[in-house]
Amino acid sequence: MADGLRFSRRLRRTPFTASAERAGVSEFSVVNHMLLPKSYGRSVEEDYWHLREHVQIWDVACQRQVQVQGPDAAWLVQWMTPRDISRAKAGDCLYVPITDETGGMVNDPVLLKLAEDRFWLSAADSDLLLFAKGLALGRGLEVAIDEPDVSPLAIQGPKAEPLLADLFGPHIRDIGFFKFDWIDFSGTRQLIARSGYSMQGGFEIYLDGGQLGGDLWDAVWHAGQAFEIAPGCPNLIDRIEGGLLSYGSEITRENTPLEFGLEKFCNLDVDVDCLGREALQRAANAGIPRQVRGILFDGDPCPTCAEPWPVRVGALQVGQITSAIWSPRLKRNVGLSLIARSFWDAGQSVAVHCIDGTTRNGEVSDLPFA
Amino acid sequence: MADGLRFSRRLRRTPFTASAERAGVSEFSVVNHMLLPKSYGRSVEEDYWHLREHVQIWDVACQRQVQVQGPDAAWLVQWMTPRDISRAKAGDCLYVPITDETGGMVNDPVLLKLAEDRFWLSAADSDLLLFAKGLALGRGLEVAIDEPDVSPLAIQGPKAEPLLADLFGPHIRDIGFFKFDWIDFSGTRQLIARSGYSMQGGFEIYLDGGQLGGDLWDAVWHAGQAFEIAPGCPNLIDRIEGGLLSYGSEITRENTPLEFGLEKFCNLDVDVDCLGREALQRAANAGIPRQVRGILFDGDPCPTCAEPWPVRVGALQVGQITSAIWSPRLKRNVGLSLIARSFWDAGQSVAVHCIDGTTRNGEVSDLPFA
Repeated sequence: MADGLRFSRRLRRTPFTASAERAGVSEFSVVNHMLLPKSYGRSVEEDYWHLREHVQIWDVACQRQVQVQGPDAAWLVQWMTPRDISRAKAGDCLYVPITDETGGMVNDPVLLKLAEDRFWLSAADSDLLLFAKGLALGRGLEVAIDEPDVSPLAIQGPKAEPLLADLFGPHIRDIGFFKFDWIDFSGTRQLIARSGYSMQGGFEIYLDGGQLGGDLWDAVWHAGQAFEIAPGCPNLIDRIEGGLLSYGSEITRENTPLEFGLEKFCNLDVDVDCLGREALQRAANAGIPRQVRGILFDGDPCPTCAEPWPVRVGALQVGQITSAIWSPRLKRNVGLSLIARSFWDAGQSVAVHCIDGTTRNGEVSDLPFA
Repeated sequence: MADGLRFSRRLRRTPFTASAERAGVSEFSVVNHMLLPKSYGRSVEEDYWHLREHVQIWDVACQRQVQVQGPDAAWLVQWMTPRDISRAKAGDCLYVPITDETGGMVNDPVLLKLAEDRFWLSAADSDLLLFAKGLALGRGLEVAIDEPDVSPLAIQGPKAEPLLADLFGPHIRDIGFFKFDWIDFSGTRQLIARSGYSMQGGFEIYLDGGQLGGDLWDAVWHAGQAFEIAPGCPNLIDRIEGGLLSYGSEITRENTPLEFGLEKFCNLDVDVDCLGREALQRAANAGIPRQVRGILFDGDPCPTCAEPWPVRVGALQVGQITSAIWSPRLKRNVGLSLIARSFWDAGQSVAVHCIDGTTRNGEVSDLPFA
């Protein structure tokens, strides 16, 4: 489901957009005021099977970095997240829910600790930089906040490691999950993390210096020929099957991290200054009213979920599907939905009121889907 | 110039999207994480002539409202803008540059004063809500900030006034420019302002209650039949000819309001608490290095400006065009560019390095274009 996108400078091109165009990009989304390639003319299903078997190159420069540095940098980052970051080391990546004072989620970035007083927040689709800047200015913190010229390029799939070891040396094999290290590229030092928005493993190169975008794409592309590399993008089947959440689709400011099973990233027992801590403690004590679940549902491959579809038990709405697609592996439709507590057990029968007018039988599933 | 847009819940539909689809919308942009119709299958030029002569209905719900209310609301709004808002009255709309501590622009909304302690900031394309929330939380202000279910529908063009007088009563004729009043619609009270992102006059209805979106569109549409109404959108020819700026295209955080000739909205001599005041005073005293100008340039109708095009005098880059289009009225291409001080006088010869590889002769023009 796609319609035309009217380009303008406001929807920023990335250092890799020209390369993506040469590779045949046919559809985009927009994240952080920047273009995100979403199709190269193949079906989501073809891309899915390819991603599971080979390796793909993804322009995810739209994951913009909010750089926080200075004497108060660590304090500010901790203030924004209920996750205890005190034991993080330089070289660590941490998934950090960012909340306001109500516990509502403002963003869900990956935090990269570059030094004790320097961090990148690799942001999902909201202007996290403006929130951080507002907090710092309001509180009078000694900290500098900006968006550096850093653009992630993801190399995802089972062949990502051998490809990148060929290209940058075997030391990249030693990088642990959600850790980062450095590579040399064209006379520059570049950050590489074992991370990425897929379930198939891989790396993200945080390219520092947009002028190198075309060269980096080409280097990966050429080294990738031996590994059947293809251009790709975050894959909706892989994402939903894996229960990977999307800020703006599943997660909004109306939701707390607890509703997404992110308790392990909320160290509510640790006594740190954190904006959302009290509200989240109250919410945890009161018992959360809804939590994200998978929904398996029948019928033909479902259309694109561009607005929430009610999930009902009898006449009662118990949730709403916010992302959905046909799973060729499970041979059923799969969706993500917050589900009210009384109905969130796996196996619960539900009815999905799809945008195409059909009502489909379904059932609640744990995440990730089996 | 359009490619495919992949829909998802993250790119929010508006209360008018279904109506726009029935009216034949064929292209969108994305503003504030929401769909903005950008074409109904006619050319920008056809739309331009129609807008100048008749009346159009525009889904501009993406102009999201940041509601600021409470005892500290007026203080917070003043802190964010160098414009003196102390003499504003309920019923006033004010264009307010919002700046950070460097004087860099964070947004350029229209402020609607609803009461002494309640404001809407009708936001351009950045998460102004997160900036305001950060400032309020950092400073510990007594203020509530949220995004109400309010969605502007613009009625633009010379026949907007008679149409709306027919539909809502003759009192709307008495609404002054950048003032608002109230209308009754379907048992509800709705805000209507004489404003809009065109040079052809008109109104914006700030629909409170998204469930009324289809009904409001239909009511305007039916009343508009006698006035040759058409569905439309902010028109790029009209916008550039009129020198209307776009946040994200012309204006970024790198720029101060002074660079856009917005001195009249910066009351730097008034002693108010304002984040950007000192930086702007310094910038004004130092003399601004560049300011926005029009560029008239030769050759065939230019392509879409999706990334800046260098503007040169000899070998020296003196600016960059950030929006451009063919003007059928001036029979030349028109563009907007910040231009270095020594070259910003009207009539200065320049060369435009267009994305299509052509170098075109041009000249600097005052704004709006004659």
